[in-house]
Order: sequence, then C-alpha cells, then structure tokens
Amino acid sequence: MQKLGKADETKDEMFEESVQNFNKQLMEGTKLQKDLRAYLTAVKGMHESYKKLSECLEEIYEPEWYGKEDVTTIVENTDLLWIDFHQKLVDHALISMDTYLGQFPDIKARIAKRGRKLVDYDSARHHFESLQHAKKKDEVKIAKPVSLLEKAAPQWAQGKLQAHLVAQTNLLRNQAEEDLGRAQKVFEEINMDLQEELPSLWNSRVGFYVNTFQSVAGLEENFHKEMGKMNQDLNNVLTKLDEQHKSNPPSL
Amino acid sequence: MQKLGKADETKDEMFEESVQNFNKQLMEGTKLQKDLRAYLTAVKGMHESYKKLSECLEEIYEPEWYGKEDVTTIVENTDLLWIDFHQKLVDHALISMDTYLGQFPDIKARIAKRGRKLVDYDSARHHFESLQHAKKKDEVKIAKPVSLLEKAAPQWAQGKLQAHLVAQTNLLRNQAEEDLGRAQKVFEEINMDLQEELPSLWNSRVGFYVNTFQSVAGLEENFHKEMGKMNQDLNNVLTKLDEQHKSNPPSL
Repeated sequence: MQKLGKADETKDEMFEESVQNFNKQLMEGTKLQKDLRAYLTAVKGMHESYKKLSECLEEIYEPEWYGKEDVTTIVENTDLLWIDFHQKLVDHALISMDTYLGQFPDIKARIAKRGRKLVDYDSARHHFESLQHAKKKDEVKIAKPVSLLEKAAPQWAQGKLQAHLVAQTNLLRNQAEEDLGRAQKVFEEINMDLQEELPSLWNSRVGFYVNTFQSVAGLEENFHKEMGKMNQDLNNVLTKLDEQHKSNPPSL
Repeated sequence: MQKLGKADETKDEMFEESVQNFNKQLMEGTKLQKDLRAYLTAVKGMHESYKKLSECLEEIYEPEWYGKEDVTTIVENTDLLWIDFHQKLVDHALISMDTYLGQFPDIKARIAKRGRKLVDYDSARHHFESLQHAKKKDEVKIAKPVSLLEKAAPQWAQGKLQAHLVAQTNLLRNQAEEDLGRAQKVFEEINMDLQEELPSLWNSRVGFYVNTFQSVAGLEENFHKEMGKMNQDLNNVLTKLDEQHKSNPPSL
C-alpha cells in the first residue's frame, strides 16, 4: 500500500466519531455482559448456600415442633423463588444481551473493510491526480521551446513524438479515472451503509440499557418482595415454636 | 484397665440418651455454623458482583441522561444495604453461633472424663467385691476340716496362721472399700453435674435455633424489603430515561 500524504486522506470526522462511539458501545456491552454473567454465577452461588442453610433448618426441625410442615413449605418455596429468579435473569437479560452483542462482529468487520476500501480509493485518486498533474506539465512543455533531445530528432519526427506522448498519457489517465470511479463506488457504498447503521446502533444503546436494567431491577424487585414475605412467614412460625417450647418445658 | 462383665457396668440409660442428644446437638450446631459461614461467603460474593454490575450501570449512564444523580444515589444505597446485611448477619447470627458452640468442647471433655471415672469406679467395686467374695470363701474354709498343708503344720501354729490370714484379708478389704468410696465420690460428682447440664443444654437448642433463624429471617426480610424499594426506584428512573430518549431523538 502506498503511503499517502495527510491531504490525500478522505476526511470524515463524523464517521471517525461514529467509530469511536461504536468502539465505546462495544466495550460497554462486553463489560456489561461479563458483569451480568458474573452476577448470574453469584446468584447461583448464593442460591446454593441459601438452600443448604434452609435444608439445615429443615433437618434440625423436629417432627413434634410447631409448624414442621410450614417450614418444609417455606424452604421449598424459597428454593423455587431462587430458581425462578435465576432463570428469568437468563431469559430476560442475558439472552437479549447476547442478541445485542451479536450485531457487533459483522459491523466491526465492515468498518475494517471500509478502511481498506478507503485506502484503495485514496490510492486510485492519488494515482489519477498525479497523471492529471503530468498532463498539465506536458501541456506546459509543449508550449515551451523544444528540448535539446527533441531538437536532435529529425524535423519530420517532431510532431509524431508529440502526438504519441499525448495519446499514451491520455490512455493511462482514462484507465486511472475508471479505476478511481470504481474504487469510489465501492467505498461509498460501504461508507453510506455504515453512516446509516452506526448512529442507529449507537442510538439503540439507550433503549437496550433501559431494557436490560429494567429487566434486572424488575426481577430483583419481585424476587426481594417474595423473599421478604417468605422470611416473614418463617419468622412467624419460629415465634410460635418459641411460645410452644416456653409453655411446654420438657421434663428434665 | 480391667475388662468388666456386663453386670459390673453401672447402667444409666438416661445418661446414655443425654450423651446421644449431646452428640446430635453438637453435630447439628457444627453443620449450622458451617452452612451459615458458607452463606455469608456467598452473600459477600453476590454483593461484590452486584456492586460491579451497578458500577457498570453508573459508568455507561451518560451525564446528560435523565436521573444520572439518582442512579448514583441508588447504586451507593444498594451497596450500603449489602454491607449492612452482611455485617448484621455476622453480628447477630454468626457470633452467637460461636458462643453457643463454645460450650461444647468443655462438656465433651467432661463426658470423656466421666467415662474414665466410671471405669475407675467399676474397677474399684469389682476389686472390693472380689475381696468380699474371698472373705466368704475363707469363712467357709475355716468351718471346713483343715487341709493337708494345715494338717502338716505343727499344732501350735494352726491358730496363728488362721488369725494372720484373717487380719491380712481384712486389711486389703478395708483399703479396697476406701478406694471404692473415693472412686464412687469422684464419679458421682462429675456424673451429677452432667446429669443436670446435659438436658439443660439439650433444651437450650430450641431457643438457640429460633434466635438464629429469626435473626437470619429478620435481616433477610428487611434486606429484601429495602432492596425491593431500591429496584423500584431504579425502574422508575429508567422509565423516565426511556421517555426522555424517545421524545428527544438524537439528530442522526
């Protein structure tokens, strides 16, 4: 690939900003996915240890104690709450997260492709421009007094040499112009698509974050509400067990 | 230690039952402590990952979005809720758990000591009883016709031999009786203490389980209630952000 001067590069500050946003968005999404996955693992971990603690209560709870069956029901129900909470987090937050992030690799590849097509386009334009520049120089040369070499050629050849040079230069220039046109078309097609898609993707992040965190917050709210109730129920059963035990002290 | 016959052992079925209860109680307490500790570790783990997920929300929440400050406040407050929940579980459940279990090693050592003292007591009694038995045999012997060996002794020695044997047996028996008295006293002292303490300790488990699980359930109830509120607040903020975003679409 040709090294091009700064002035040669097609500037598109808005596009550059879109790409920066895209990278930021991808980074944020990736981090969110990672943190959400870690959170789900922790939910599973806390569920497991909560379950063990509940089962411990069930085991030590003697058959003749007040509310033995209630305790079993509460333990079963809290377990179901945990399972439900975890499953819904997976369904409503993690899966839509995966879908959202699934859009990025294709667009990333197309941003890279656009970069390569821009280099092609810049290179074609540079080539064409240098030929244009040469043409102007030739025209200047024709207007100028002939060179020593030209002077050395026989008089009859002078015109033919001139015509040959002009024709050759025109051919190269036409070819370069065609190449430039093609390169421009390829670039502009991919560029136009991305210029539409990137801001739209960037804009979609707000709704996505809202949905994700509303899902999590909603599921949490419900989970905590239900768990709070279960714990209140357990508290009540234990209060009655305490009363039963205090009013019927065992014969020592 | 002497092998004693089954009939020699001091039977105390009630005490055996107390020891069985003690072992059950210790096992239950140890399991409860282990499960509670694991639960506390899981609470810390879930707190950490919840914090990371919240911080992720804070980071992606752009300054111009509706409720940026509210989000920061909610994130800070949920973090404080987690810290408070964990700390109170330690203070109200784990520490009293440690105090409760702290009673067991001393009693366990005293149960073992009682076992050794019972062996001493049984052994002393067995020894005394065998001397008692020997005395009866001697008395029978005196009443019986003299043996060939006694017949071989000169006549004047016969009475002295008899008297000497009786005195020696009496001395041994008195010593064995004293030993038995001492062994019995030592055993009965430790036995009496344990017979009071073990049923009382066993009885205390009910109140202890009630307190422990009421602490946990109460703290959970409060934690879930407050967390539910926080999540409701977050949900409201996000709904408004969604409205703001939908009514002010960015210029693409």
